[in-house]
Amino acid sequence: MIKVAIDAMGGDFGPAPIIEGVIQAFEERKFTPILVGNKAKLLSLIPAKYQQTFQIVEADDVIDMSDSATSALKRKESSIYKAVELVKEGLADGVVSAGHSGATMSLATLRIGRLGGISKPALATIMPSLNHYGKSLLLDVGAVTDCTPKNLYEFAIMGEIYAKKLFHIERPSVGLLSNGEEDSKGNALTKEAFKLLQKVNGFKGNVEGNDIFKGTIDVVVCDGYTGNIVLKASEGVINTVFEIMKTQIKKSTPAKIGAYLMKRKVFSHLKQKVDYAEYGGAPLLGVNGCVIISHGKSNAKAIKNAIYQAIAYKSSGVNEAIIEQVSKLNQQ
Amino acid sequence: MIKVAIDAMGGDFGPAPIIEGVIQAFEERKFTPILVGNKAKLLSLIPAKYQQTFQIVEADDVIDMSDSATSALKRKESSIYKAVELVKEGLADGVVSAGHSGATMSLATLRIGRLGGISKPALATIMPSLNHYGKSLLLDVGAVTDCTPKNLYEFAIMGEIYAKKLFHIERPSVGLLSNGEEDSKGNALTKEAFKLLQKVNGFKGNVEGNDIFKGTIDVVVCDGYTGNIVLKASEGVINTVFEIMKTQIKKSTPAKIGAYLMKRKVFSHLKQKVDYAEYGGAPLLGVNGCVIISHGKSNAKAIKNAIYQAIAYKSSGVNEAIIEQVSKLNQQ
Repeated sequence: MIKVAIDAMGGDFGPAPIIEGVIQAFEERKFTPILVGNKAKLLSLIPAKYQQTFQIVEADDVIDMSDSATSALKRKESSIYKAVELVKEGLADGVVSAGHSGATMSLATLRIGRLGGISKPALATIMPSLNHYGKSLLLDVGAVTDCTPKNLYEFAIMGEIYAKKLFHIERPSVGLLSNGEEDSKGNALTKEAFKLLQKVNGFKGNVEGNDIFKGTIDVVVCDGYTGNIVLKASEGVINTVFEIMKTQIKKSTPAKIGAYLMKRKVFSHLKQKVDYAEYGGAPLLGVNGCVIISHGKSNAKAIKNAIYQAIAYKSSGVNEAIIEQVSKLNQQ
Repeated sequence: MIKVAIDAMGGDFGPAPIIEGVIQAFEERKFTPILVGNKAKLLSLIPAKYQQTFQIVEADDVIDMSDSATSALKRKESSIYKAVELVKEGLADGVVSAGHSGATMSLATLRIGRLGGISKPALATIMPSLNHYGKSLLLDVGAVTDCTPKNLYEFAIMGEIYAKKLFHIERPSVGLLSNGEEDSKGNALTKEAFKLLQKVNGFKGNVEGNDIFKGTIDVVVCDGYTGNIVLKASEGVINTVFEIMKTQIKKSTPAKIGAYLMKRKVFSHLKQKVDYAEYGGAPLLGVNGCVIISHGKSNAKAIKNAIYQAIAYKSSGVNEAIIEQVSKLNQQ
């Protein structure tokens, strides 16, 4: 049975939505949850029937958003430290955290370690797309703000393997995010990376910002500074569109009726397509384990889906395939 | 009377929508249009009553998207070369081009020259925002893909002055686009730029991708690689949202009725808010003249608004204010 460690204390809303997500996942899939956090608090939230089934690992400290990512390495009693440590020690197959993402990435990289052949891990997010699969993969979105061309090359390989194994795309297409689709476009970093990416099977050349969503590419590679900005800008656009619509709907009775009629078939569908909770969390690719980083504002559904993602990740053999592919390409 | 040179041949759809935009602008505002392009073709599109009023400058060559930006410098008979040259020679107060944006930027920078104290120009776009003014300014979106900290510092000054003069914001707030709002966030470039930006009046520190739209900041500064990607990603999100809604509406009769009821008060308003045609073109800040770069797919309305922008730009004294402010800050 796959064991998933969950940092039960790290989210913005405390342990309640996290426990709720674990319960929802547990009632639908087979896995062993290991909850890491304040035992008394967690037991007060876990229904009696699961108190014997859910494992709990005591952790008294919580790293919050005001803490620096580097201080996390010394905070050995924190829930995220202990949750990561369970993966390092082989006591859990994967870890899900909605806590301090910088701390989780640092701990995962330094405590669990990197996969053979990978210089730096990348945080990958699943984006809504109009392609056949309804999603694309964007990486890195914040693990490495200053990348080398080799980092981007390794991100491309990891992204391709992830899309193959987890999206079940036979030959994923891979694009390098740039300020134009011509081969000559890009900044100094991407121009160098462009040459290295020629070795990657599905590499289709440079892609533009809109390609992430319009279904023209499955995997989009960029540095973590750019990816993080693109991710947050995209969320910002969606929120602003909803905000404008809401304000306008309030002003008109016909529009109110119209919105009611569109709710079930249009708005619910749209919200689902752009709701990060549907996609679970972001896998940290390149670490020697399974690390799923969830949004700080994760609700129960987001946690449930992040757990599913951890289970699928572990079962897919994505890490083994990455090691094999990097080694194969490096020998060419 | 303000004279505006218009590259009448450069847009994706040929001269027709451009001429139409010039006519619309001419019927509402006082300015002298100077159309640059194939005289016979242009005369066939200009109504008889304006054939004497609109000036035409003959240009037989057109630089299209497949040409390189650098080749533009040798193509002295091209419409964009001649249009830019009119500004250089003082025969026009500003130029509007929907043609090859790389060529326009190169020509403007090298032929017209830079403003005193500015190392590199920046292309600035107006983005929809939930702030009081309904818009924010994002720069650079593609003029300089590899920036120095000093470039970003100068962009911040230029953006602040532009927002003051053209958005009529008394004290515009300025943010540095980063992967987190904490001072410690950023890549090597922005961390260095962060120190220089302390000198800029309205500097509020790092901002994230969503701040562009949510009304928390008036001017957002970044390098041209990142800005271009953010701009296109934002357009991509909007298009994808509309695409998803359209597909879903078609599937349900109540939704079709709902959409009809929402059309006038909600969707039209939303489309207007996110329609680049409403905002005209992107000013190239830092050149010693007024250069407005329009979308290649500009319709008549976009050209009309770009002409208004050129008129407002020239009247505002923004260039003189930039020179003064840079010189003042450099003396500190």
